Amino acid sequence: MAECPSSSFIAHLRSVLPKDGTREALITSVIPTLLESIADVAEALRNSHHVAAAGTANSFGDDQLNVDVTAENLIRSAIARCPTITTASSEEDPVERRVQHTTPPPCPSSAPTSEEYTLAFDPLDGSSIIRANWTVGAILSLWDGPTALHQPPATAQIASLLGVFGPRTTAILALRVPNSGLAPVCIELALSADRAWHVATPQLALADTARYFSPANLRAAAEDPAYLALVTGYVARRYTLRYAGGLVPDVVHMLVQGEGVYVSPVTAGSKAKLRRLYELCPLALVVECARGRAVDPVDGRGVLEREVRGCDERGGLVCGSAGEVGGVVERLVEGQ
Amino acid sequence: MAECPSSSFIAHLRSVLPKDGTREALITSVIPTLLESIADVAEALRNSHHVAAAGTANSFGDDQLNVDVTAENLIRSAIARCPTITTASSEEDPVERRVQHTTPPPCPSSAPTSEEYTLAFDPLDGSSIIRANWTVGAILSLWDGPTALHQPPATAQIASLLGVFGPRTTAILALRVPNSGLAPVCIELALSADRAWHVATPQLALADTARYFSPANLRAAAEDPAYLALVTGYVARRYTLRYAGGLVPDVVHMLVQGEGVYVSPVTAGSKAKLRRLYELCPLALVVECARGRAVDPVDGRGVLEREVRGCDERGGLVCGSAGEVGGVVERLVEGQ
Repeated sequence: MAECPSSSFIAHLRSVLPKDGTREALITSVIPTLLESIADVAEALRNSHHVAAAGTANSFGDDQLNVDVTAENLIRSAIARCPTITTASSEEDPVERRVQHTTPPPCPSSAPTSEEYTLAFDPLDGSSIIRANWTVGAILSLWDGPTALHQPPATAQIASLLGVFGPRTTAILALRVPNSGLAPVCIELALSADRAWHVATPQLALADTARYFSPANLRAAAEDPAYLALVTGYVARRYTLRYAGGLVPDVVHMLVQGEGVYVSPVTAGSKAKLRRLYELCPLALVVECARGRAVDPVDGRGVLEREVRGCDERGGLVCGSAGEVGGVVERLVEGQ
Repeated sequence: MAECPSSSFIAHLRSVLPKDGTREALITSVIPTLLESIADVAEALRNSHHVAAAGTANSFGDDQLNVDVTAENLIRSAIARCPTITTASSEEDPVERRVQHTTPPPCPSSAPTSEEYTLAFDPLDGSSIIRANWTVGAILSLWDGPTALHQPPATAQIASLLGVFGPRTTAILALRVPNSGLAPVCIELALSADRAWHVATPQLALADTARYFSPANLRAAAEDPAYLALVTGYVARRYTLRYAGGLVPDVVHMLVQGEGVYVSPVTAGSKAKLRRLYELCPLALVVECARGRAVDPVDGRGVLEREVRGCDERGGLVCGSAGEVGGVVERLVEGQ
């Protein structure tokens, strides 16, 4: 494993990020190191044939799988090689802590810099489908400064990275750097056999309308007539159903198809399950950078309009093609 | 690529197949060679980052992807190394033809034998989801004798093999050898980094009832009140939705969870899409070997009770946990 990873997409990153040197570590160290950790997780999963309970639970009380623990450790060890990531927390260990760095590698990117980042990550999203060998993902979210809490997500969360572990290994990188004068980007990357990342799609974009729908937490429709009507409405209009039950594959399906709507409502009888810091904010950035919308199904407000006040905050999610998301807000929020 | 593949699961196969030598080539040559072709397809997919139209169509008029063609070629070249597979056809080239073998390898398994098999296969099932990097599969079906047509599927189709291309590479092997005195088996295999196959689960089994449902071709519910009522009934009873839109991942999810029901109905406005020879028969054998049921949604008859009379025959499918399949037959067939 190279300590100073570099590959063909760095030239692409340089073309989309500020040229004034203020994001040098981000380009040459942080993002390459995080991508390297995604390659490490992919390799570990490829050989994890005994998916089993680790016999432990995370701080939320969720049972941990051995592969959750492996992915967590691989990403933590990548962070430790990256001096500008000073703070980190994860869904498996949801407390922001200062990073204890290993000796900085003799790499130009480790030169003194004013950059300082916080990483919030979900090392392995999709525990319920990993045993069936369905595609799962990792979610990494990068914030400016020494914490992700009590910050304005729309500007403080500058990057989000999804690892997609399927028949091949791909990643989605969303970048939105304030005051840079650059348009947001949402790039699809692909890992080749020599562990180099390549740009597969320079800009993913969601059309305003869609013909695919992903109804998460569909059991909630048993007690929520508005949600049931929404779903039967999609059926009546002959939308195509795709629902893996993993947030990463479900959102990535929309991005790659260029259209879709994902709905995970919150109802009286079913609590919000998605973590704002580890799931909702990073996914919302990805979707917005692809010209889509991501809103809270309770009040229709943008996911990124509200600060994250604690690592355990949770919510629902409606995201995808902007026009479709608007239609869901009309039915689930304004129709109440 | 070894010409005489062997690995730890052969001992397991020997323990479940007749000891009289009548299936020696099946154990030592046919199944290992087919599994090797699944490993080849997995490796090819891992590096196929430009999934694109091949610019051709198969005989059914479906557009072919470059990865469809690659998978087809890899499996065809495996068959050519296997003297006891004398006939083959595939969804990409749906005409039964005699196999032109390459020089037989100097392998004990190629010794003269009375065994003769026909292979029918779908090299890459799930074209619509491969671009999104979702799990896809291969379906291989092995028949006794020089043809799969006009034979009794329940006894002539002796083995079925699913390749599962996801975060890792796994396979499902179903074997039901008539007059052998052995119970049917449905084995989950896993591919390790050194390209050896290992037994992950010696016997997959579907419980009689389930809490997961997969409603395929859901758009058909727009015009079929019985199908819509079936689906809203699952919602009301709080079944969990899982629907990848790929026959292999959807069936494998049930097998690994040990429960589930998959419904792909046929209605006036939506034609049957699943091929009996390349999809329905092999999946039905897998499900039956896991103690489940697989029936035709038109009349409730077992998929394997009816001969395949042509390579292009199609149908719908209800399969999975036996009690759940019975419930669907009551609602969709008997309720008509």
